[in-house]
Amino acid sequence: MDDPLMIDGFRFAGVAAGIKRTGALDLALVVADHPVAAAAVFTRSLLRAAPVELSAERIGLGRARAVLFNSGNANAATGVEGMRLAERSTQLVAEALGARCDEILVGSTGVIGVQLAFDAFETGIPNLVAALRPEGADDFSRAILTTDRGPKVASAEVVLPNGRPGRVLAIGKGAGMIHPDMATTLVVVCTDVAATPAAIDSALRRATDLTFNRMTVDGDTSTNDTIVAMASGALGNTPIEGGDALTQLTEAFATVLGAVGRMIVADGEGAERVVEVRITSAPSTADAQQVARTIATSLLVKTAIHGCDPNWGRILAAAARAGVTFDPAAAAVTVAGVAVYRDGAPLGLAADEKASEGMKAESYAIDVDLAAGEHEGQYLTCDLGHEYVRINAEYRT
Amino acid sequence: MDDPLMIDGFRFAGVAAGIKRTGALDLALVVADHPVAAAAVFTRSLLRAAPVELSAERIGLGRARAVLFNSGNANAATGVEGMRLAERSTQLVAEALGARCDEILVGSTGVIGVQLAFDAFETGIPNLVAALRPEGADDFSRAILTTDRGPKVASAEVVLPNGRPGRVLAIGKGAGMIHPDMATTLVVVCTDVAATPAAIDSALRRATDLTFNRMTVDGDTSTNDTIVAMASGALGNTPIEGGDALTQLTEAFATVLGAVGRMIVADGEGAERVVEVRITSAPSTADAQQVARTIATSLLVKTAIHGCDPNWGRILAAAARAGVTFDPAAAAVTVAGVAVYRDGAPLGLAADEKASEGMKAESYAIDVDLAAGEHEGQYLTCDLGHEYVRINAEYRT
Repeated sequence: MDDPLMIDGFRFAGVAAGIKRTGALDLALVVADHPVAAAAVFTRSLLRAAPVELSAERIGLGRARAVLFNSGNANAATGVEGMRLAERSTQLVAEALGARCDEILVGSTGVIGVQLAFDAFETGIPNLVAALRPEGADDFSRAILTTDRGPKVASAEVVLPNGRPGRVLAIGKGAGMIHPDMATTLVVVCTDVAATPAAIDSALRRATDLTFNRMTVDGDTSTNDTIVAMASGALGNTPIEGGDALTQLTEAFATVLGAVGRMIVADGEGAERVVEVRITSAPSTADAQQVARTIATSLLVKTAIHGCDPNWGRILAAAARAGVTFDPAAAAVTVAGVAVYRDGAPLGLAADEKASEGMKAESYAIDVDLAAGEHEGQYLTCDLGHEYVRINAEYRT
Repeated sequence: MDDPLMIDGFRFAGVAAGIKRTGALDLALVVADHPVAAAAVFTRSLLRAAPVELSAERIGLGRARAVLFNSGNANAATGVEGMRLAERSTQLVAEALGARCDEILVGSTGVIGVQLAFDAFETGIPNLVAALRPEGADDFSRAILTTDRGPKVASAEVVLPNGRPGRVLAIGKGAGMIHPDMATTLVVVCTDVAATPAAIDSALRRATDLTFNRMTVDGDTSTNDTIVAMASGALGNTPIEGGDALTQLTEAFATVLGAVGRMIVADGEGAERVVEVRITSAPSTADAQQVARTIATSLLVKTAIHGCDPNWGRILAAAARAGVTFDPAAAAVTVAGVAVYRDGAPLGLAADEKASEGMKAESYAIDVDLAAGEHEGQYLTCDLGHEYVRINAEYRT
């Protein structure tokens, strides 16, 4: 089990079922050897696709046996018929595995408002179950992609007080919310540690809050976003309930979700640069996050990033409208490691030119010191360029 | 006085004072024949330019004699020296007019973080005062422009219970908040009716709320936004304090500010289309405004507008993340007068194609019926295209 794509207690598969017209892989399944502790988080949008509604209901059990993802069709805005199809797809998986139907979760990504051709499931699911194997994660990772440039996989160790380390594997897809009907975030997080459903839920929520909830491509939200975590317990540890072990598990979840999330931001079509906005000396953590988010989602900041323009005026103006009290005359702005604004005044053309050079990197930070407290926050963003407009304005034409 | 650019009791002027390197008009002044009732609203940003700080303090008096605007330099992020210059400029105007210094308001627009060369004021203000004349509004309107495509002027009548109608004239500038350091909104609203300072203040705040606070180009906010209203009272009516007459005044203010605001949205560099987002059947007016604003500021909606794509999925997804409770399956979306989504399902390709044709117009509406109440709201927006990216990414490079 030294292959980082393998996790004790899970098998994976990905097949081409004909949902995508191109014939590419489009149906993915991960199965635990038995029903295991599980948790999930979903899109906050009111407009939730049928598979989200179904999985949100079922995860109340706190356990799951398998997760079925399909790409090519989001099964969203598809009404009662869409819900019937989602249910039937999990029934097929349950029958093939000899499992309970309510232990099968489901997620979909692709076009909105078009009914799935059910044939794909009828013939695809038996093939998919037949293809399950411990080393199938690579196929799984490819079968969930839509407009992504490539698969997104990350793994980490969980260091527990005694015994050998556990392992966490995250497999995800998404290219920002650039196409809400194509670029849904779907992620499955598998670990071999044993943990209670409450501990898995806590670790997943906290890790999501530290990662996916601090990232933006364009601020829009998908109808289908789903992150599922499953713990096989194959490691044989005493099930994690809280304490240090839960902290370790949460950190490992945050590591893999952070890595997959960063790949998603970098994959926002047209994005050339990933920038971390870091706020220090804020009145509270919530204030720091609010300022970071406002800067990270400002169109003027995102176009300045695209143009390698260390435009402290735009950065500071965004901070100043975030609804957080601070004195702009005492604040400081540093771009790509170069101070460009301090004590109420810009630091001049030479500083701007040096910062502009640094902004040509694929990845760097924008730091804003609010001089208004002791708290900090951060948000990940990307540039907004012509590719973004081209893709989104010409998408259906 | 049939020239709609003339208002009894006011004189205007615009001169070239050398603040703009191009030699274009850059200094503007409007003067009432005597101190008159006045009110003003300013940017909500924490990062307020020196002239905003000074005028916000002075408008507490409820009266003003004159408003001095300059273009070419925003006098923002200029520290103590910037404030000294702003004060000194009003002192020069006061001396030339024989007025009190604290009755002179001031506003600036242009580059941020660069000190004004004070010579421009020393020599320009005497010229400006010498050029004052009742028919000088056209010069005034040109002297306040920066990246604007052209001057923005609107007038309306105020129908009072007795006597002849009053008149309202608004002169403004701005090209959205596309360049926060160039595209500040500056507006002066002059009327010949008599009204108390409290009535003017009420009419201006309500009219701003109905117009400028319901528009977006890119969601960013300038450091310098200023709207000043002055009432000369030359009409000779009993000063308006409230009642029907205040309603009439408020409507006239909303008419001229709405017209100038619409010109500003249409003038967002790169904008080709102005779109009104209209929400009906919302649980409350605040909810309706929140949904309208979320749709109007969605990048995905704005790029779809650019591409003439009646993308009901993006419109509905934006509505669904606005934080307002409604059932997307009961909602309806109409684009450019063509229904494209109803009863939880899209209305098909033919409807989409017809809507797409309608979206080629310079101006149209997106209607969303939330089927969740009896309230409505609206927000004005524009498309986001390549010109936006070009201008903003290449601005300083």
